[in-house]
Amino acid sequence: MKERVVAEVSIIPVGTSDTGLSRYIASCLEVLEGSKDLTYRLTPMGTIIEGPLDELLEVLRKMHEVPFSKGASRVVTHLKIDDRRDKPVTMANKVESVLKLRPSTKT
Amino acid sequence: MKERVVAEVSIIPVGTSDTGLSRYIASCLEVLEGSKDLTYRLTPMGTIIEGPLDELLEVLRKMHEVPFSKGASRVVTHLKIDDRRDKPVTMANKVESVLKLRPSTKT
Amino acid sequence: MKERVVAEVSIIPVGTSDTGLSRYIASCLEVLEGSKDLTYRLTPMGTIIEGPLDELLEVLRKMHEVPFSKGASRVVTHLKIDDRRDKPVTMANKVESVLKLRPSTKT
Amino acid sequence: MKERVVAEVSIIPVGTSDTGLSRYIASCLEVLEGSKDLTYRLTPMGTIIEGPLDELLEVLRKMHEVPFSKGASRVVTHLKIDDRRDKPVTMANKVESVLKLRPSTKT
Repeated sequence: MKERVVAEVSIIPVGTSDTGLSRYIASCLEVLEGSKDLTYRLTPMGTIIEGPLDELLEVLRKMHEVPFSKGASRVVTHLKIDDRRDKPVTMANKVESVLKLRPSTKT
Repeated sequence: MKERVVAEVSIIPVGTSDTGLSRYIASCLEVLEGSKDLTYRLTPMGTIIEGPLDELLEVLRKMHEVPFSKGASRVVTHLKIDDRRDKPVTMANKVESVLKLRPSTKT
Repeated sequence: MKERVVAEVSIIPVGTSDTGLSRYIASCLEVLEGSKDLTYRLTPMGTIIEGPLDELLEVLRKMHEVPFSKGASRVVTHLKIDDRRDKPVTMANKVESVLKLRPSTKT
Repeated sequence: MKERVVAEVSIIPVGTSDTGLSRYIASCLEVLEGSKDLTYRLTPMGTIIEGPLDELLEVLRKMHEVPFSKGASRVVTHLKIDDRRDKPVTMANKVESVLKLRPSTKT
């Protein structure tokens, strides 16, 4: 099985006169859901994605195109990759390991 | 009422020989919970905080000290602030506005 | 003497219909130059600032307001703080330590 | 000619007991210099890369492996892509457009 990473993506169209970004985000998620090797979770500040790094970078490439296809002429994309190889890491167990130490943590 | 922003914080100790960061994160959250004006939510990739920007920066300053107090000699802290002033923004309504457009979104 | 950190700031107005951001950046730099404890350097991807962390956060707070004062109603600000306390760190010596290992490095 | 983007990369090994990161950065730059379509510039806070996005993501993938090959078991990589398509953007002209408005800017 391929090693999985946990990553976070945020895609900001610039110069679109849209203060709200929901319609761009919704379309990016449509692209993301097309990939069966990746799981994701939308947060208030970005999209967290779990899966093999190569697939993740391929999907990021496609997500980055979405705002252009909707009329934006500039896009700023942030990606953060957390890749740990001494033990399997998932979205779930990253949070659980903090909860073990601090059960009152809000998630 | 003071305007609230939504922000994301990630604090990484460097050169500590700890591959896992949970004990640093748990202590940072303890500091954060001491602030009654701020609400937060731990995600697999960081901590999302909602509240007035000045309080948030004060707490960030304290959270950034935590790994030093636990022995780290270098800390890299990332902060992302999303500040929208044409309408009130919360962690909850940022996600809801995407869910309205795409009800199948995983959160 | 107070310990100095090296940080990077990027401030993006959202929904302004300006694809170019130079006029926002130029005004942010005006605010930054008002602080005598901080030195800075503009790069193609952000502004790198060196100085005591408290002063830096105060100035960041003011820089973040600039796009609002110029008409933006949403601003996304990224801050990255690199704080090393086992030895003094400056913008200059961070690059020099790589140059020592790899003199062909382009800076 | 393929469109070029300007991006910034920062790669942090976690849990290595090295407080200094120069030797990791120097090896990452060696990988980057192997790509003839990309130009780069090391700053005190990261590496700024200019070139076609597909090549850039391929090289990022390789740079991300470097700390693992040097013994790290966890790596946190940040990538920021600035992709503007209404006019050609380069590292040089991004800074020049601010200098035109504010000639005293330090670069």
